[in-house]
Amino acid sequence: MATDPWLSRELAYAPSPEQGYAFELRTRAVPALKAGEVLVRNLMFSCDPTQFAWLNGGNSYAPRIRAGDVMRAWAAGRVVASRHPDFEPGQRVWGTCGWQDYSISDGSGILPLAHIPDDIPLSYPLGLTGISGVTAHLGMIEIGRVAVGDTVVVSSAAGATGSVAAQLARNRGARVIGIAGGADKCRWLLDGLQLTAAIDYKSGELEQRLAEHCPNGIDVYFDNVGGPTLDAVLGRMADHGRIALCGATSLYGGSSASLQHGLMILARRLTVRGFVIMDHRDRFAAISAELTAAARSGQLTTREDIAQGLEAAPSALLRLLEGKNIGKQLVQLEAAASEPMLCATKR
Amino acid sequence: MATDPWLSRELAYAPSPEQGYAFELRTRAVPALKAGEVLVRNLMFSCDPTQFAWLNGGNSYAPRIRAGDVMRAWAAGRVVASRHPDFEPGQRVWGTCGWQDYSISDGSGILPLAHIPDDIPLSYPLGLTGISGVTAHLGMIEIGRVAVGDTVVVSSAAGATGSVAAQLARNRGARVIGIAGGADKCRWLLDGLQLTAAIDYKSGELEQRLAEHCPNGIDVYFDNVGGPTLDAVLGRMADHGRIALCGATSLYGGSSASLQHGLMILARRLTVRGFVIMDHRDRFAAISAELTAAARSGQLTTREDIAQGLEAAPSALLRLLEGKNIGKQLVQLEAAASEPMLCATKR
Repeated sequence: MATDPWLSRELAYAPSPEQGYAFELRTRAVPALKAGEVLVRNLMFSCDPTQFAWLNGGNSYAPRIRAGDVMRAWAAGRVVASRHPDFEPGQRVWGTCGWQDYSISDGSGILPLAHIPDDIPLSYPLGLTGISGVTAHLGMIEIGRVAVGDTVVVSSAAGATGSVAAQLARNRGARVIGIAGGADKCRWLLDGLQLTAAIDYKSGELEQRLAEHCPNGIDVYFDNVGGPTLDAVLGRMADHGRIALCGATSLYGGSSASLQHGLMILARRLTVRGFVIMDHRDRFAAISAELTAAARSGQLTTREDIAQGLEAAPSALLRLLEGKNIGKQLVQLEAAASEPMLCATKR
Repeated sequence: MATDPWLSRELAYAPSPEQGYAFELRTRAVPALKAGEVLVRNLMFSCDPTQFAWLNGGNSYAPRIRAGDVMRAWAAGRVVASRHPDFEPGQRVWGTCGWQDYSISDGSGILPLAHIPDDIPLSYPLGLTGISGVTAHLGMIEIGRVAVGDTVVVSSAAGATGSVAAQLARNRGARVIGIAGGADKCRWLLDGLQLTAAIDYKSGELEQRLAEHCPNGIDVYFDNVGGPTLDAVLGRMADHGRIALCGATSLYGGSSASLQHGLMILARRLTVRGFVIMDHRDRFAAISAELTAAARSGQLTTREDIAQGLEAAPSALLRLLEGKNIGKQLVQLEAAASEPMLCATKR
């Protein structure tokens, strides 16, 4: 247990040919803060598919995570010490941290949570009304331009982002077909999220089910997985359809990225657009406020899958690849037990 | 020779396993016009890659051409008889006709050429200021959103559409790299069109040359060919790059459509959009007027490759697949010899 504020456990990336994604636990003394720095006690980690993109190559916002680096994660926590003018001890924050008890930031990657009302769980800025929800909104509303009567398909529809994307389309009057793996998830898509139809991709009948549920083609596809699922949907798109590429979880596990139906982009005059939330930071606050209102009124709901303790972070993250999580996958740290406001939620 | 106005030669699609795309010459009597119909003597055919798309599947504007059908083509001609209120004998028109001496139309697929000034060649509405040029404008300006300083790549850059797309980008202050097959075409790209660089894809060094000429990635790609060229360019795109998919000539010849670099759409947050000119008919007149002004002032130029006679149409069309044409491929019909205004041009 990291009860000493000046000792911090952390998980460093330690890939191996045998284990693939693997991490090594180490303990370090937290260095003294320099001017402009903030010390954050992490309370909850978000598990996101984009973390595999960071491990596999990074992008202009997030450099590649290399062997020996502390694993990067989006997290919520509390400021315990600050030499930065915008942060003060006791304040709740969220942002880019690491898999560690304590993170030091120069303030550029973290934001105060002061505006989050008390009845909103701390997990929401990482999920329904935050990272996952804002991503879903960008993909479904701004890129997908979903409209009443559209036929919409969402992959990973029982996941954190897909489940919000599907609900946003449903709320706008679209016919929504969710793709998920397994009967439990499909049941939640129908009973919990009231989607038009659910397709269990593990049935091996994805193409037939898509043809059955989308006789006039697919107007909007929100893609979280890439690979063969993207290819199957490409083959069923309607003229002028829109595809929002939000993630490619199928590929992080090693599947082929080869697309056989790429020619449909031309034949059906599709718009295919990849996006990452960091390109749209200026839109975050407004979209998050809209999602928070929708969540409070019951128009949006979520499920959360919460693993306990820092050591659980690697297996929690790998659950995304294995498709084991239903809804948002989170990791709650030991320190969260002493956080009164964390429990003052309606989860 | 079709000197009798009531006898018309035509070429029907007659595919065979041995020959692939093949056509059969037949002669028919032209039926009497019904109310609402127009009889057009065809003077010039446009050869367009989209004709292979019509042969291979069609789309919502243009049904598939099946064995026995007269081959469809965009053409320019002259009205010889009319029972349609919008057309009168003697008028020049262009639009969707067939590979035949005379075409009968209900008027829906043809337009008068009355607005084309006398110093503009009849070929221009089929090429530089018409089909090819408008397609180039839509892809480069409206989809590609080319801007000063952008690095732009155009495939089939010595073709009818690509050569206009490349010039439009050049005129807007972009660095333009044209891809073409063979030294003659590449020389025209540099000396005739003043592009920044030309890559001969037949050199087998496409990826290396792209890396050399696009060290900071590619902002806009105007794609006419699909297949391996599209894949190679996908691998070099810059963040937030735009790809306009205008054609896939490489695939009409039977190459694989499989894309290995599809994941770059996500990683680089690209926008990839397929389009066909018929979706943008309402924009045609305005764009065509702009192109006509640019052609007259010398800001846009073209080359034309004109085959002679109806029987030459199949081999002229196949030149597109073989990459033999430089600039716009056309077929001039025998009847054009008696058209005085056809020769009053600066070609």
